[in-house]
Amino acid sequence: MSRSLIVQKFGGSSVANPERIKRVAQRVVETRRQGRDVVVVVSALGDTTDELLELARQISQDPPERELDMLMATGEQVSVALLAMAIEELGEDAISFTGAQVGIRTDSSHTKAKLIDINARRIQQELAKGRVVIVAGFQGISVNQDITTLGRGGSDLTAVALAEALDADACEIYTDVEGVFTADPRIVPNAHKLKSISYDEMLEMASLGAQVMQARSIFVAKRFDVPIHVRSSFSSREGTMITKAAKAMEDIVVSGVTLQRDEAKVTIRDVPDKPGMAAQIFKELAAQDINVDMIVQNVSREGATDVSFTVVKHDLPATLRVARHAAARVGAGDVATDEGVAKLSIVGIGMRSHSGVAAKMFEAMARERINIEMISTSEIKISCVIRKAHAERAVRAIHQAFGLSRR
Amino acid sequence: MSRSLIVQKFGGSSVANPERIKRVAQRVVETRRQGRDVVVVVSALGDTTDELLELARQISQDPPERELDMLMATGEQVSVALLAMAIEELGEDAISFTGAQVGIRTDSSHTKAKLIDINARRIQQELAKGRVVIVAGFQGISVNQDITTLGRGGSDLTAVALAEALDADACEIYTDVEGVFTADPRIVPNAHKLKSISYDEMLEMASLGAQVMQARSIFVAKRFDVPIHVRSSFSSREGTMITKAAKAMEDIVVSGVTLQRDEAKVTIRDVPDKPGMAAQIFKELAAQDINVDMIVQNVSREGATDVSFTVVKHDLPATLRVARHAAARVGAGDVATDEGVAKLSIVGIGMRSHSGVAAKMFEAMARERINIEMISTSEIKISCVIRKAHAERAVRAIHQAFGLSRR
Repeated sequence: MSRSLIVQKFGGSSVANPERIKRVAQRVVETRRQGRDVVVVVSALGDTTDELLELARQISQDPPERELDMLMATGEQVSVALLAMAIEELGEDAISFTGAQVGIRTDSSHTKAKLIDINARRIQQELAKGRVVIVAGFQGISVNQDITTLGRGGSDLTAVALAEALDADACEIYTDVEGVFTADPRIVPNAHKLKSISYDEMLEMASLGAQVMQARSIFVAKRFDVPIHVRSSFSSREGTMITKAAKAMEDIVVSGVTLQRDEAKVTIRDVPDKPGMAAQIFKELAAQDINVDMIVQNVSREGATDVSFTVVKHDLPATLRVARHAAARVGAGDVATDEGVAKLSIVGIGMRSHSGVAAKMFEAMARERINIEMISTSEIKISCVIRKAHAERAVRAIHQAFGLSRR
Repeated sequence: MSRSLIVQKFGGSSVANPERIKRVAQRVVETRRQGRDVVVVVSALGDTTDELLELARQISQDPPERELDMLMATGEQVSVALLAMAIEELGEDAISFTGAQVGIRTDSSHTKAKLIDINARRIQQELAKGRVVIVAGFQGISVNQDITTLGRGGSDLTAVALAEALDADACEIYTDVEGVFTADPRIVPNAHKLKSISYDEMLEMASLGAQVMQARSIFVAKRFDVPIHVRSSFSSREGTMITKAAKAMEDIVVSGVTLQRDEAKVTIRDVPDKPGMAAQIFKELAAQDINVDMIVQNVSREGATDVSFTVVKHDLPATLRVARHAAARVGAGDVATDEGVAKLSIVGIGMRSHSGVAAKMFEAMARERINIEMISTSEIKISCVIRKAHAERAVRAIHQAFGLSRR
């Protein structure tokens, strides 16, 4: 009979200094002494990644991405070595590995590499020797034997992928929050922690600004059905389980309310009301790798229409350049931008089978006299763009309307 | 016809910050633009190694050596990535590698690994593409695919070994001094830089306290006849060539005067004058990895003799422990220590064929009324232990006596 195996991932703030590394070691050793095999994934210490990027910036404004990866990968290598030392200090056998050493193979897209596969053999050999295995998150190796990094949320991805490759019983993501909440507790003081949430809901919430995990890792977890436990590295309380939808959960219509304040609204006025005009503009934005989020096309008047859409603020300069160029070419008018917006969303797998969810949301906003400027929906989420100044009030009203505080 | 290939090694102080890294890049690019292939070996940035060791110390007083190597190796990895960026920034193609990536294979003695061999194929492929190849010094990979480090002077060793493996035309060691001097210029203001020196002389000088290069790398250079050029990274002046003895050099009797102030003298009194007594004591010291340098056995009186020897001060506590134990067992008397000594040496390949060198040295000291406490000689060096208070005066007198200032 095989032993129980758990993958534990600790983020940068959990290993920011030697004291915290010792605390992480303590937790790993406790798990190990429960008789479980443990594989640990660690990010770079605290601000290391930013410090390395700053060093690079002092040398080049546009450094080669292969060399950036070579540089960045050292951050996690420092973490794994120090954590191995801390675990050994507590009397358990431990061994650290870089991504390359445990065969985390990726493509060659430096700074945002995609996982190809993981050769779990070396890890299994070390586990069989009774060792805690510590793997550098965020990094891999390409077919050319070059060091790659996986981009944002890369360490979570390493953990989920290792859990899948090793057929682990669980994947614990330790972070600086206690789990997934019905809303940001800084905005809604009586928001509560969810005991569990489905992959699909978590995917939507991640895309909608919940900072707990990147959508990318949840997508992989969903695909391979890897159960994830998001919990705090600073307490021993249970966090939130991310799994397939459980039966009992389907009665819950809405699981959470999210808020994004990093989007901007762009409006192209007087777009000629002919087929393919809007498509033309969005094709050019896509070609520039600009991710357009919500799109609204106003009612046509006098053969022309206003097209509005949102992008993340970071992409605004590039968006304006492309949009102005495209607008001129299709014979449209001005391009206006509005950074005073926020996007509020509700997410819930129960929406699929419940009608009237949107109406309830809109009513709650109407009672607060908050105007909705744009709406978009999917099977399990509804998003509204509103004035940023009203955003927090709106989140509280909706959280209340769906009874999220009372559970 | 193959192109000229040069290996350039830059130490930690040469790459201590982004400004200095840019200056190193400039120098590499100049060499490259002379039409030569360039392989660069770099150490960790400035104090990085000490900072990493301090992190480890905060976690464990006795960290596993494998994990120390994992940790330390990140220092050079940062350097190679940054230097590659700086060279690309100047418009030349560059690519960085860890020791593992270019197949610098070592044994498994972590923190002091020995080189086994280098697989130069990847480097040659990249050179053929017209790239400057940058290799992390000080590190390698064991047969278990574990990261190893080569110990003190490891980056020099990487450079010399790469020069040999790639059949380079020269190996340039860039450092913070201008080359090898006839004596320490801080002691002898009119000491001059040697144009060239033989491997054997440099080996002696390295062992005798000249800080330019570790004996270990010179030994490898000598074995494979790799010509070394020691020069300053802060000037473009020629430094010192280390090669096989050139014909013309044989007229020069003494190449340099060195001084070591980190030794201590240990005296075991009243050792019974029987065969094997001294051997017994030194065997026990050797078993404790204590390196005994000079040994003098005084004239026997009344069946007992005093045995004196020198060790580096760092080893003094362990030496005393072993010596007292051994002395008690063989029935010898007290063990006395004296840290007020210094070791002064002259080195020169010309001594082999010139008589009277020792006499000239002793005369020079006699004129200065400096007492010689111990003497040891080899084919190409003579060392004397004297009072530390007289050491600098003695160095100047001997430097003068052998006409080293006038060349």
